Amino acid sequence: MRFLVAPSGFKESLDACAVADAIAAGIHRAVPGAVVDKVPLVDGGEGSAKALAEATGGMIVPTLVTGPIGEPVLSHFALLGGPGPRTAVVEMAAAAGLRLVPKEHRDPATTTTYGVGELISAALDLGVDRVLVGCGDSGTSDGGAGALQALGARVLDVHGREIGRGGAALADARSLDLSEVDPRLDKVEITVACNPHNVLCGERGVARVFGPQKGATPSQVEQLSRALDNWAGLLGDVRTIPGGGASGGLGAGLYALSATLVPRFDVILEHSDLDARLPHADLVITAEGAIDGQTPHGKVPAEVARRAKKHGKPVIALAGTIGAGARANHDIGIDAYTSIIAAPVELDTAIATAAELLTDATERTLRLVLVGAALT
Amino acid sequence: MRFLVAPSGFKESLDACAVADAIAAGIHRAVPGAVVDKVPLVDGGEGSAKALAEATGGMIVPTLVTGPIGEPVLSHFALLGGPGPRTAVVEMAAAAGLRLVPKEHRDPATTTTYGVGELISAALDLGVDRVLVGCGDSGTSDGGAGALQALGARVLDVHGREIGRGGAALADARSLDLSEVDPRLDKVEITVACNPHNVLCGERGVARVFGPQKGATPSQVEQLSRALDNWAGLLGDVRTIPGGGASGGLGAGLYALSATLVPRFDVILEHSDLDARLPHADLVITAEGAIDGQTPHGKVPAEVARRAKKHGKPVIALAGTIGAGARANHDIGIDAYTSIIAAPVELDTAIATAAELLTDATERTLRLVLVGAALT
Repeated sequence: MRFLVAPSGFKESLDACAVADAIAAGIHRAVPGAVVDKVPLVDGGEGSAKALAEATGGMIVPTLVTGPIGEPVLSHFALLGGPGPRTAVVEMAAAAGLRLVPKEHRDPATTTTYGVGELISAALDLGVDRVLVGCGDSGTSDGGAGALQALGARVLDVHGREIGRGGAALADARSLDLSEVDPRLDKVEITVACNPHNVLCGERGVARVFGPQKGATPSQVEQLSRALDNWAGLLGDVRTIPGGGASGGLGAGLYALSATLVPRFDVILEHSDLDARLPHADLVITAEGAIDGQTPHGKVPAEVARRAKKHGKPVIALAGTIGAGARANHDIGIDAYTSIIAAPVELDTAIATAAELLTDATERTLRLVLVGAALT
Repeated sequence: MRFLVAPSGFKESLDACAVADAIAAGIHRAVPGAVVDKVPLVDGGEGSAKALAEATGGMIVPTLVTGPIGEPVLSHFALLGGPGPRTAVVEMAAAAGLRLVPKEHRDPATTTTYGVGELISAALDLGVDRVLVGCGDSGTSDGGAGALQALGARVLDVHGREIGRGGAALADARSLDLSEVDPRLDKVEITVACNPHNVLCGERGVARVFGPQKGATPSQVEQLSRALDNWAGLLGDVRTIPGGGASGGLGAGLYALSATLVPRFDVILEHSDLDARLPHADLVITAEGAIDGQTPHGKVPAEVARRAKKHGKPVIALAGTIGAGARANHDIGIDAYTSIIAAPVELDTAIATAAELLTDATERTLRLVLVGAALT
């Protein structure tokens, strides 16, 4: 029996490689002689640069940048290996991720993507042909203004002065001057890997959907929403473009620099062989920290299921939490899902023991599958 | 597809009927058109008298008795319906169960089975031919001395005086006088439904295995162990007879009244049609609050699996908690097991939402089985 194991990482717990290894261990317990093909997947968020460097035989370039609250942060980007154009992967979370924002500073009105622009600039210093910007897990909502400023753009208020950093200051912006943007960008292709469901403005926009997650109060959400509306007017036709809301509006900001916004898996999966390996699998197993009503909207398990179904392959998803609306996943190709939790347990304990829980749950899950296989 | 659903109750949460109903609901969600045959099972413990009265079209007889800490308790026993000898079911937990012992009184050295003897006496008043005593969930460790006293036995100390109630007082017992025991017992068959793994004395005896669960400190355990050793010497050859340790030694005590100790499912399942219904099932689903290394030692899922395997039927077990050593259950016929828990959660919440968790988990489980069925 041949298994394709294509999981996401479990946030704050295990990266995708560790998840794949834990699942593989459970498969071998339940199905001796199983052939397991592991394709750990990333979504552009935390850990993506390292994972893609590893997958392509590339390297990680450490870089000191301005962090989301203005303090210096030792960040990094990836130089991918392999043939094709010389490509840097700039994972925005490595310079402006939520994890870099101390809990007491979680105010998306003030955090900045300045360091993301610095990472892009550092990649240009190495002469790359292409910069792939990975979104996800951001701690910012500045519409990418900081990144643009780091690359030479000027964001000016009514008096012609530079506005401050962070999303709230965007309310003061009256003009965007791109005349001094780094000229090297003219010859470099910037591709932003976005969740296309994320838009910049409106009811499903950055401020209303992600502001509360990043620490904004209801009144801050409204303030931020108005500031981003104002900012959108300077960027061009970006209010509802797919992915414009990625990483607190970084997508929309980079769009103003002629970046191409691409559904994240379309570009990230170029670097895995998922599609080529699917035809050989009897059963596909995917996983993510949570499976819920949001999963179909561009999460790893949904993408794996969508592609697996093109080959008619059955798909099982494992998760730490089965959340509200999970059943919607049956409609997009996840045939069955289950939780890795084996008993009432605290979240911290579950996170600390996730690898063991995953292995045990995979064994249990496959024994159920084997019961089914023996029925017919 | 035909399902046989044969679960135990979930302690402190759902009785066996409610568990069976919740599982059936999940089956129908995953397998439209499924035929579900429900056989809720009891093990002699809490709820058994009511369940057996319902299953046989019998009735419940309310009876005021002496509770485990000496206070009056409104208890009950069952008069079974149907053909055959007139049978009363005396569930010991209804007169001396752990739930009847307030937490601040949980001292197995002092609690008594006196009320169990009173229930047997009340059943005799109704002219029954047979008394089936169900063990399990007891709050006592008095070796059945209280029950014997209530039926007329005299337990005397070195001065020829009646000893006090409870397990600790058994250290003072020097003689057991059965001359004044209720003469109606001569014509009535007493059958004690026991877990045969429970013995009265020694390392696997009542005091050491169950004392701590019932609230005894380590020194109380040793004191109780010596007292029960002394008591065993007066009862006859009962130190290690199978089931002698059932319900804090009630099995051994009643054995001295010529009761027959029988493995609990051998007698309890007489009143269900489990064996007759198994041949019609494609898949058997059982359940209990916990599945762990103890399950094979006489718990409901193990008994169901053992019988199902005689008919070559696949068995899946659902549980709130998958505990240490659970994998041993694969050796006794449980092909696969899974937890009903869907996310990190507190025990109290899980108990309060157990029915919903069971239904959802059954649906998830059967979708996994269906994945397997479609593989071949």
